[in-house]
Amino acid sequence: METREILEQLKNGEITIETAEKFFKKEPYRELGFAKLDSHREIRSGFPEVVFSSGKTDEHFADIVMKLYEHDGEVLATRASQHQFELVKDKLPGVVYDPVSRIVKVEKPGKSQVGKIAVCTAGTADIPVAEEAAQTAEYFGSAVDRLYDVGVSGLHRLLSNIDTIQSANCVITVAGMEGALASVIGGLVDKPVIAVPTSVGYGANLNGLAALLTMINSCANGISVVNIDNGYGAGYIATQINRLCVKKG
Amino acid sequence: METREILEQLKNGEITIETAEKFFKKEPYRELGFAKLDSHREIRSGFPEVVFSSGKTDEHFADIVMKLYEHDGEVLATRASQHQFELVKDKLPGVVYDPVSRIVKVEKPGKSQVGKIAVCTAGTADIPVAEEAAQTAEYFGSAVDRLYDVGVSGLHRLLSNIDTIQSANCVITVAGMEGALASVIGGLVDKPVIAVPTSVGYGANLNGLAALLTMINSCANGISVVNIDNGYGAGYIATQINRLCVKKG
Amino acid sequence: METREILEQLKNGEITIETAEKFFKKEPYRELGFAKLDSHREIRSGFPEVVFSSGKTDEHFADIVMKLYEHDGEVLATRASQHQFELVKDKLPGVVYDPVSRIVKVEKPGKSQVGKIAVCTAGTADIPVAEEAAQTAEYFGSAVDRLYDVGVSGLHRLLSNIDTIQSANCVITVAGMEGALASVIGGLVDKPVIAVPTSVGYGANLNGLAALLTMINSCANGISVVNIDNGYGAGYIATQINRLCVKKG
Amino acid sequence: METREILEQLKNGEITIETAEKFFKKEPYRELGFAKLDSHREIRSGFPEVVFSSGKTDEHFADIVMKLYEHDGEVLATRASQHQFELVKDKLPGVVYDPVSRIVKVEKPGKSQVGKIAVCTAGTADIPVAEEAAQTAEYFGSAVDRLYDVGVSGLHRLLSNIDTIQSANCVITVAGMEGALASVIGGLVDKPVIAVPTSVGYGANLNGLAALLTMINSCANGISVVNIDNGYGAGYIATQINRLCVKKG
Amino acid sequence: METREILEQLKNGEITIETAEKFFKKEPYRELGFAKLDSHREIRSGFPEVVFSSGKTDEHFADIVMKLYEHDGEVLATRASQHQFELVKDKLPGVVYDPVSRIVKVEKPGKSQVGKIAVCTAGTADIPVAEEAAQTAEYFGSAVDRLYDVGVSGLHRLLSNIDTIQSANCVITVAGMEGALASVIGGLVDKPVIAVPTSVGYGANLNGLAALLTMINSCANGISVVNIDNGYGAGYIATQINRLCVKKG
Amino acid sequence: METREILEQLKNGEITIETAEKFFKKEPYRELGFAKLDSHREIRSGFPEVVFSSGKTDEHFADIVMKLYEHDGEVLATRASQHQFELVKDKLPGVVYDPVSRIVKVEKPGKSQVGKIAVCTAGTADIPVAEEAAQTAEYFGSAVDRLYDVGVSGLHRLLSNIDTIQSANCVITVAGMEGALASVIGGLVDKPVIAVPTSVGYGANLNGLAALLTMINSCANGISVVNIDNGYGAGYIATQINRLCVKKG
Amino acid sequence: METREILEQLKNGEITIETAEKFFKKEPYRELGFAKLDSHREIRSGFPEVVFSSGKTDEHFADIVMKLYEHDGEVLATRASQHQFELVKDKLPGVVYDPVSRIVKVEKPGKSQVGKIAVCTAGTADIPVAEEAAQTAEYFGSAVDRLYDVGVSGLHRLLSNIDTIQSANCVITVAGMEGALASVIGGLVDKPVIAVPTSVGYGANLNGLAALLTMINSCANGISVVNIDNGYGAGYIATQINRLCVKKG
Amino acid sequence: METREILEQLKNGEITIETAEKFFKKEPYRELGFAKLDSHREIRSGFPEVVFSSGKTDEHFADIVMKLYEHDGEVLATRASQHQFELVKDKLPGVVYDPVSRIVKVEKPGKSQVGKIAVCTAGTADIPVAEEAAQTAEYFGSAVDRLYDVGVSGLHRLLSNIDTIQSANCVITVAGMEGALASVIGGLVDKPVIAVPTSVGYGANLNGLAALLTMINSCANGISVVNIDNGYGAGYIATQINRLCVKKG
Repeated sequence: METREILEQLKNGEITIETAEKFFKKEPYRELGFAKLDSHREIRSGFPEVVFSSGKTDEHFADIVMKLYEHDGEVLATRASQHQFELVKDKLPGVVYDPVSRIVKVEKPGKSQVGKIAVCTAGTADIPVAEEAAQTAEYFGSAVDRLYDVGVSGLHRLLSNIDTIQSANCVITVAGMEGALASVIGGLVDKPVIAVPTSVGYGANLNGLAALLTMINSCANGISVVNIDNGYGAGYIATQINRLCVKKG
Repeated sequence: METREILEQLKNGEITIETAEKFFKKEPYRELGFAKLDSHREIRSGFPEVVFSSGKTDEHFADIVMKLYEHDGEVLATRASQHQFELVKDKLPGVVYDPVSRIVKVEKPGKSQVGKIAVCTAGTADIPVAEEAAQTAEYFGSAVDRLYDVGVSGLHRLLSNIDTIQSANCVITVAGMEGALASVIGGLVDKPVIAVPTSVGYGANLNGLAALLTMINSCANGISVVNIDNGYGAGYIATQINRLCVKKG
Repeated sequence: METREILEQLKNGEITIETAEKFFKKEPYRELGFAKLDSHREIRSGFPEVVFSSGKTDEHFADIVMKLYEHDGEVLATRASQHQFELVKDKLPGVVYDPVSRIVKVEKPGKSQVGKIAVCTAGTADIPVAEEAAQTAEYFGSAVDRLYDVGVSGLHRLLSNIDTIQSANCVITVAGMEGALASVIGGLVDKPVIAVPTSVGYGANLNGLAALLTMINSCANGISVVNIDNGYGAGYIATQINRLCVKKG
Repeated sequence: METREILEQLKNGEITIETAEKFFKKEPYRELGFAKLDSHREIRSGFPEVVFSSGKTDEHFADIVMKLYEHDGEVLATRASQHQFELVKDKLPGVVYDPVSRIVKVEKPGKSQVGKIAVCTAGTADIPVAEEAAQTAEYFGSAVDRLYDVGVSGLHRLLSNIDTIQSANCVITVAGMEGALASVIGGLVDKPVIAVPTSVGYGANLNGLAALLTMINSCANGISVVNIDNGYGAGYIATQINRLCVKKG
Repeated sequence: METREILEQLKNGEITIETAEKFFKKEPYRELGFAKLDSHREIRSGFPEVVFSSGKTDEHFADIVMKLYEHDGEVLATRASQHQFELVKDKLPGVVYDPVSRIVKVEKPGKSQVGKIAVCTAGTADIPVAEEAAQTAEYFGSAVDRLYDVGVSGLHRLLSNIDTIQSANCVITVAGMEGALASVIGGLVDKPVIAVPTSVGYGANLNGLAALLTMINSCANGISVVNIDNGYGAGYIATQINRLCVKKG
Repeated sequence: METREILEQLKNGEITIETAEKFFKKEPYRELGFAKLDSHREIRSGFPEVVFSSGKTDEHFADIVMKLYEHDGEVLATRASQHQFELVKDKLPGVVYDPVSRIVKVEKPGKSQVGKIAVCTAGTADIPVAEEAAQTAEYFGSAVDRLYDVGVSGLHRLLSNIDTIQSANCVITVAGMEGALASVIGGLVDKPVIAVPTSVGYGANLNGLAALLTMINSCANGISVVNIDNGYGAGYIATQINRLCVKKG
Repeated sequence: METREILEQLKNGEITIETAEKFFKKEPYRELGFAKLDSHREIRSGFPEVVFSSGKTDEHFADIVMKLYEHDGEVLATRASQHQFELVKDKLPGVVYDPVSRIVKVEKPGKSQVGKIAVCTAGTADIPVAEEAAQTAEYFGSAVDRLYDVGVSGLHRLLSNIDTIQSANCVITVAGMEGALASVIGGLVDKPVIAVPTSVGYGANLNGLAALLTMINSCANGISVVNIDNGYGAGYIATQINRLCVKKG
Repeated sequence: METREILEQLKNGEITIETAEKFFKKEPYRELGFAKLDSHREIRSGFPEVVFSSGKTDEHFADIVMKLYEHDGEVLATRASQHQFELVKDKLPGVVYDPVSRIVKVEKPGKSQVGKIAVCTAGTADIPVAEEAAQTAEYFGSAVDRLYDVGVSGLHRLLSNIDTIQSANCVITVAGMEGALASVIGGLVDKPVIAVPTSVGYGANLNGLAALLTMINSCANGISVVNIDNGYGAGYIATQINRLCVKKG
């Protein structure tokens, strides 16, 4: 612990007050250790760093994935292409690629998943975003129930699964087109709903903005919204919520 | 019948070919009689002219309302203020004003209302637009069932009324905020749904644009959309649809 | 009938009140039978399920098309590519592909088309969307009249076909660019007009939003609007309307 | 003539080269005379300066109106309120105020109006903007034909007046809501059409943007567009066009 | 319990199977009791119904507030005016009005507030929305820490309060203008952040849309967003999250 | 004359009143002869039909171009690709392709160009749109002066060419990015300015919408606007204006 | 200096390492003294705190203004109403109110203004925003040249003042409507131009967004943009720039 | 001096008043010598012309780059592709290409860079835009400090570099997604901040518009904004600002 070392050296007369003072004046943030604190927080909270693969050069992608793997013993990369997977396939034991969620992943053996997050989609075209959310949450240690294709145009599909949805600590609702599913679920559960608009649709869907507006304006309580197609973000915050229950248990 | 009179006068030698020709050359549209045809169509279709009151000067409002009353024996004025009602209150026997729908109206006694249109709202704040729709449809001769405050955040309210909704020839769905009601109803009925977005809401509702986009992008089939707050337009087209059934009955 | 069985078992003392109560608490949605109702509704309404091909993987596309064909004896897939057609070409007897409407289709022999829907386009570039609407309506059993390239910049083309348009039970108006055709037709017919904005145009057409706004704001009565390029949706709701006439006949 | 005077004084030895040089170096724009040139251009082109009244303080309004009247012997003020009219009513002989167009005006006696501009509106609510256009054009010396309430929802009203419209040198088309009138007129005439979107309408008319987009995307040739509610601008450019004919006559 | 009564009556032979069957067929939703379930859920979850006062007529407002008070022994009304407060002031013992949050409230004595929610604002102008959130959360039983005016333009204000923020179970971040506070807080805490954009600002803030977009696009993890100025919604979902901790404790 | 024949036959007893009446009821539009009128108008106005090539299939393109050539002895196709040119290169004597304006053209020998249109661009990237405008105007018989790359960031380039611009009957101003050129030219000439926004630029240019808004909101008089990148439309209306001068000459 | 004291106490054995460590872990932000630093920065940079008056309650406004006056011996309040001025008029010696810029101000006697900022407006309606910018800059110690009503529709007004503009260290350009002035000035000077779009205009000006887009897309170099109507912000950053020159002088 | 020669010739009777007058009327712009002034300004200000490569044809690109090199002895081309670099690689001694910033460049040997500009980015994906800014500034003679990946989600990265940032004459802040970095830096420095929104992000980032709105609405003082991804523009104006310090030194 750097701070302590300085203080001990000062106490022991190994350094002068001026030297110590200089250290604290010049390096407060490092010493306060945002970077360190960050490491601490990551360890404590169980959110290791994750790779957003899209747009990365080949070298950068492979480099970052390998470094994180070496540091954490596991690694998660979202929005990865098949090509990017090929770059690390032979270097990482046990690495897998899911073309639906576009996730490249190595997981430590024996991880347990606790609590419960329900991930619902309106249609089958929303599944890639939902899988990004679900697999992110699972990677971060949450148990996940998937309920796909339960959109409001066939309400019975949703209603016949409502028990499962109501038993989760947090519900992720993934929907494109008009995004009405979030409001309907919001009216049926008493847990927080994280709504993920998707860019699924055409015409006046404005690449997902229509669904985003629907969800932001929802008449139901207990709904908050993340960015269009942001499955990762939904999986992250849902895990934060899910952990609140678990930790207290 | 002007056309016929001209032709008869020509045949009877009362006018020359030149006179007749001049009439048809100069007045084709009148003679072909868009105006007449229009009158005919109105009589036949039962859609008398209606007054859009908003923005009209006091004189114009009173003048038009009186003229239509004299011509048709009844009159409907939408988006009228209490003040506008006062302008004609003492001149029109039996005139009434509904401050909710903002409709000024005199109706012929003994009109019958046939068929069935269901008018649903998501919340109570949508009722003014719904009443404009319902009363317009009734004025045009449609029977109307009202189902208000059946929004998706409390799905049971909608589901317990679903029989009534399913029995209509056409369903008008009026909703603001996120407008999800249209999709849910669209999935539950097999008749055309006319969706009316309302400006009810705040923030990112964009004065009704959010609800309009929801409805236009609906994942359910059988939904088409009119302008924001356009209860009159919904009542009009729903009556057109409702009549299709009735006439054939 | 499950409900009755439970009740009978209760009355006969085969089960306890608690068991019966649990059933009704837990299974309301199944008992109310939305799924069954749904099946019933499809059979009754004659709207078999349809495939939205765009974005589907090869396996999913072929799988769904084959399953629906096996179930219904016919199948309609919209927004299909030539490639997707190739996937099922040899497996489905009598399957055809129309590159204009992008529809893959097998139809039962001897289907009749009744009533009348008029499908109009402003220009020739709107024809793909119009054909999706027309062929959808025909697949669902509606007779269709096509009137293409009757845009308002050459009004005579429209006016010389007005009789055909006026004789339909419902008019589908397909237009891009500024979409003015809907308003003009709306003023000339007394039947419902379903307006379909298309993404045809350039510059400030905003990929069809300009036409959508034109149609939503139409000064003519009796017009309602579906999503940009949504020929299928227009064909669907127009068929719902068309059937209202036919059933009563 | 300032330029000439300086040159004459130089030639006559009344001033030195240095004095003349200083004048041309220091005042090139004034001397080259944008201000003068401007005056010249105004005199030549017949476009005297006009007052945009809206937002002006009482003093500024009265002051500018009086100064222009004194300079030109006539004055036109657009977007003026009744209150602003009261400010100059007693100071300007023959001043008149039109509450519809919101124009305050004193005109020189005996002005002639030449050529022909047709000003059309879709509805009666568009008349204030149309009158601003028409009276501006008349003030600038153009003869104007008014054809109001010829919107496309009742096409016969337009068609029965088409001769008048076709005989103009330029057609100003004023329309709110969906603004389709511009396209229809554009298809019927072979002269330039100046389209003026108005803020008339509600809901998704976006305060006139919907009509503006309609007109900008028109499928008809020969249409160009000015700002929403900009009657003055339309009257101005239409007069420029109208004069092209007249001057050559 | 209605369901049970029916079953008992059936078992006791007081009613026939047909009568019981009719009950379950006709009233499934009522019997299954969405309304009842709803009541149950409200009691269980501790979210009594709340009044959204804006736009309500005087009678409706007073009526609903009184009815809820009679039912629940307490009542919360958001977005209430001073005038609305006057309507119930003399009828409700202990009712108070806070002009900042615009909340009218009667609370049961002795309610306890548990857990911890931090409510932060960027500026002082965001406080009304923040108070709506804070007082809503408190009414629903959450303990709240307020940290106002800690916007990013003076980062020290935020950083010196970071311990308080980090110790909460959920952080509500209220910010207008550019809304950057959410991202900064999101980077400093490991609990869910509910971001509330406000309409505070001017010019290109687009009445809060700019802040909403900022928050939706946040580079920090663990942020989700509610509607512009929706303090109530933030207080509601934050309480849902806060309770997850508390219940397990 | 059909009308007269009918009337004569009626008078002569060759047909009944009913037959004559039917004729006038059924054929107004044909009789009014819009189609014929149209042909007449094209011949009279000198605007032969033009091909918009973009999006046309190979067959359609070649077919239409050949038919128009056969009918008119010349043909103009805008937005044509090199590939489309190849389709007709060997079939049309004298056909040329300009890759900048993307125009395929055969012109009758010996056409004269009269009057004067100035075509200005802000930058070199606007030249393709400007050439579409210029060559369209020339094809329709207007003489054109080109003044390219005279954008406002180097005002001297514009000012040193101002005489040429001021001497035109109509000025076409083509500009992307912020589109300020239209306002500056509008302030310097007394002839109509047709402003063409282009999609040139990046970022917040919104594909030309920014330039369109600039031009629509211009503080200068005498400016009207066509669609983004619509060089053809500008060339068309400028020719209409230019002809007004010439015809009177 | 707190840091030093802690270190000395540690070295002197007055406190333990743990106590010192706790201090540095817990108080880094306070110790780093952002608050202090801030005060220092204000004194050093000469930017005392300023009051944004709009939306403040009477008490808050008067309170803040008085406190700042007492602290700084002078005070500047922007966006103040006449009413707000009345609140402090009698309490502040020498306080003045300018209804154009809406600034309430007390200034220390004998302040000098150095360097040079030119503030230009396109029209007279932009002057309130320009005065807010100019008076803000003057209050912060910058000398200001005003050049109002030099919009591009009368270019000579701008060009005849170009020397003054070119001699400034920074040019603030204030313009509404289409905002073209920024580009023209940007092309004529070699100093930074701060562009301020204003909400002046109507129709498609979108309350200033059109001008903002114009300025952001400017084809001229050396232009950057602040928020719509943000005169204060422009005056602030222009002063920052102006000081760079002055300090080095 | 041309002006003087004319005046002398006039005085000497070598030319007539009419000739002189014509000169001043016709040649004002040439006389004012904007072109000359421009050349002078470039030399004086040290901003040689730069090539915007995107969209240029191969010939044009190579031609312009070579001409500028011949004239200036150095050349900078932004937004160049690898392919465009290949076109000039062998013709220009010492030419280099940076695929990150997409800059093709030849620089004169021995150029010195003075003053200090800090270029910060929120993430690594913003680096291409930042490098365009940094290298542009360096090419124009500014010394640049780069601080990349200091986004607000990990505030310590920014704070530990704050000294470097505070010591610059001007800070360029490059950020996509929500763009919050500009506000945070604006609150920490007392020098002008030039904010560059980037198109980095997805979903509701609207291709950079979200970040642009964030920056325009910043709550911090001293921030102004350039176009999305406009690194060049930021480097240019930052150099203008940086030079103000240096010249005075």
